Amino acid sequence: MPQLDYPATGAWQSGMPSGSRKFIHFPSDRGFALDGGSYLRDVTLAYETWGTLNAERTNAVLLCHAWTGDSHAAGPAEEGHPTPGWWEGIVGPGLAIDTNEWFVVCTNVLGGCQGSTGPASPHPDDGKPYGSRFPVITVRDMVRAQLRLTDMLGIPKWHAVIGGSMGGMQVLEWGITFPERVNAIVPVATCVYATAQQIAWGAIGRRAIKLDPKWRGGEYYDAEPGDGPWQGLAIARMVSQVTFRSDNVFTERFGRELMDSDADRNGLGLWDRFVVESYLDHHGDRLIRRFDTNSYLIIGKAMDLHDVGRGRVSLERAMARITMPSLTIGISSDILYPTYQQKQIHDLLQRQGTPSTYVEVDSPHGHDAFLINLDQVGKPIKKFLETLDGQSK
Amino acid sequence: MPQLDYPATGAWQSGMPSGSRKFIHFPSDRGFALDGGSYLRDVTLAYETWGTLNAERTNAVLLCHAWTGDSHAAGPAEEGHPTPGWWEGIVGPGLAIDTNEWFVVCTNVLGGCQGSTGPASPHPDDGKPYGSRFPVITVRDMVRAQLRLTDMLGIPKWHAVIGGSMGGMQVLEWGITFPERVNAIVPVATCVYATAQQIAWGAIGRRAIKLDPKWRGGEYYDAEPGDGPWQGLAIARMVSQVTFRSDNVFTERFGRELMDSDADRNGLGLWDRFVVESYLDHHGDRLIRRFDTNSYLIIGKAMDLHDVGRGRVSLERAMARITMPSLTIGISSDILYPTYQQKQIHDLLQRQGTPSTYVEVDSPHGHDAFLINLDQVGKPIKKFLETLDGQSK
Repeated sequence: MPQLDYPATGAWQSGMPSGSRKFIHFPSDRGFALDGGSYLRDVTLAYETWGTLNAERTNAVLLCHAWTGDSHAAGPAEEGHPTPGWWEGIVGPGLAIDTNEWFVVCTNVLGGCQGSTGPASPHPDDGKPYGSRFPVITVRDMVRAQLRLTDMLGIPKWHAVIGGSMGGMQVLEWGITFPERVNAIVPVATCVYATAQQIAWGAIGRRAIKLDPKWRGGEYYDAEPGDGPWQGLAIARMVSQVTFRSDNVFTERFGRELMDSDADRNGLGLWDRFVVESYLDHHGDRLIRRFDTNSYLIIGKAMDLHDVGRGRVSLERAMARITMPSLTIGISSDILYPTYQQKQIHDLLQRQGTPSTYVEVDSPHGHDAFLINLDQVGKPIKKFLETLDGQSK
Repeated sequence: MPQLDYPATGAWQSGMPSGSRKFIHFPSDRGFALDGGSYLRDVTLAYETWGTLNAERTNAVLLCHAWTGDSHAAGPAEEGHPTPGWWEGIVGPGLAIDTNEWFVVCTNVLGGCQGSTGPASPHPDDGKPYGSRFPVITVRDMVRAQLRLTDMLGIPKWHAVIGGSMGGMQVLEWGITFPERVNAIVPVATCVYATAQQIAWGAIGRRAIKLDPKWRGGEYYDAEPGDGPWQGLAIARMVSQVTFRSDNVFTERFGRELMDSDADRNGLGLWDRFVVESYLDHHGDRLIRRFDTNSYLIIGKAMDLHDVGRGRVSLERAMARITMPSLTIGISSDILYPTYQQKQIHDLLQRQGTPSTYVEVDSPHGHDAFLINLDQVGKPIKKFLETLDGQSK
């Protein structure tokens, strides 16, 4: 556990309530260095905790969220976190990630829009939103920011770092960048690097946002309510939403049903909608109410830039730094992060002699199954955490 | 062969050159009735032919093109068809569809932009482009327009109707709507109805076009050159281009390579491009030079509306009308029209006792394999046409 050379302002203290949002502020006199070569000043990281850190500080578990997630892994929607916990049903007393046993922490990633410093935050120079001035960040930047919180909380070593999708990218970077600070990792439905196809999906969303005249180069924060770049963001979200799910489930759920008003004319109007379109619209609508478009861009770009091998000679050399036990979870029907990508993580780890378990969730729900099939996801995690139990506590 | 009750203006005559574009004009005094309930007046259909119609008029083969294709199935790019033939290498003397033997015909579909009446065509009322006035059409409308050409050419029965993707939709509709005019059908990489996922991809493209301020509700035909709704169309095309290919081929071909200028800074600019993005841009650029945005919308909507069972009691009842031999071709790596959809066609036909063969192209190239793996696609078609030979000639 390193000595902090800066004050731990805003850090958790025993007795703080579970599931309420807290903030740490990085000291303003020194910048937070980014992979891209620039610095961010006055960084704030929002986080939530559940359970209690034990006296030995050995029962801490870090959860890492996905693209449009936030620190709110468990609990109802309330001020500061507009949606219920993204792993509600997994995280809590007596659940797979048992908060009676573990001190669970989840941050809103750097670049996010639910309390952590991101494009909508005030620039320290002028107090106006960063907008287009916000620099490109990487998953490694997110993880380095989380390391600061780790230090501030006085956690020498995470019992486990767990996350799905982009959360899983952070998990891998934790294992590689700070192996001495992590006992075990659980990457879920993720990959060692973004593939060309994944980048392509990301690029389509980026272009749609850029095309939206209300995006105005990222400087839309003075827009009237309801007058921001919501259409571009909604289209970007549509792309994600299709890749997050599966052909089968779409067919079962929506088939070729038309919206009621469109059914009267057999859907034979150019803008008449099938039910699946209304579903995508609904998800777009929900997202624009709770998520900042520039954050969506910045975080999406970080995912495209994800490559654990970058600057580390090779993929194998990077993965060789992962020496702690790992549980990798894939989803049978995932079209965005197909199971060959999780098997690749498992194979690389096994080949180098790192203890590795691979579990495949058998689900028709596609990528989102890690947020849906909670039983199948939770069980192996619970078992894995318990197996490790004797080692770290 | 029905008696024509209208003059066959512009129809093919013996001695006309192969592969040059021809036009037929439907008589202007009567409208062409559409599925949507409206009429089109002064319809023109562009078409090309290869080979010679035999005296018995029994050697005619109809090819049906896909979304952004046109009548130019074979031959180099030249005026009137800005790209080389989409089945160059399949259609020609001595090739799989042997133009020494068959009289091959391909139309530009109704709603298209390469000579057939579409949104860019002059409205008969005022001579200005239809624009948003162009009605929604269906694949059945396309096929009924092709029937008019069939009559005008004096072809009692097609030896075979062949096509991939949206072309395959037309093929199925030919078999169902006009079974007495078709000896055999070859649907390739297609489906009996557009699934929710396929509709979702289409919807994303539609929204991107609608979002483009230069689309102007479809009334952009007075735009300066280079000032049309090209960005929206390019984004729509990106979606298609990703679904037309495969994860594997994208990884092999592009990996995570950055464009040269972007590599200097590790791609760490928000708009720095990976090579795969530049590839998608390139395809978008190519399309906007040769394709009308409103045609893209209208034809895309027709595909979403494709459902052979619509208004025919059931899918099974519709398919029961197909009594002629069929060869159905699927592609192993197709993510847009997965092989279960072609197997479904084959199963439905087999179950009702219709002679049916299913062939699967083993290719990593995804949906586009029907335009790439010409050998694997051409061989079974050649064999199928020859097997039928004795029956029809």
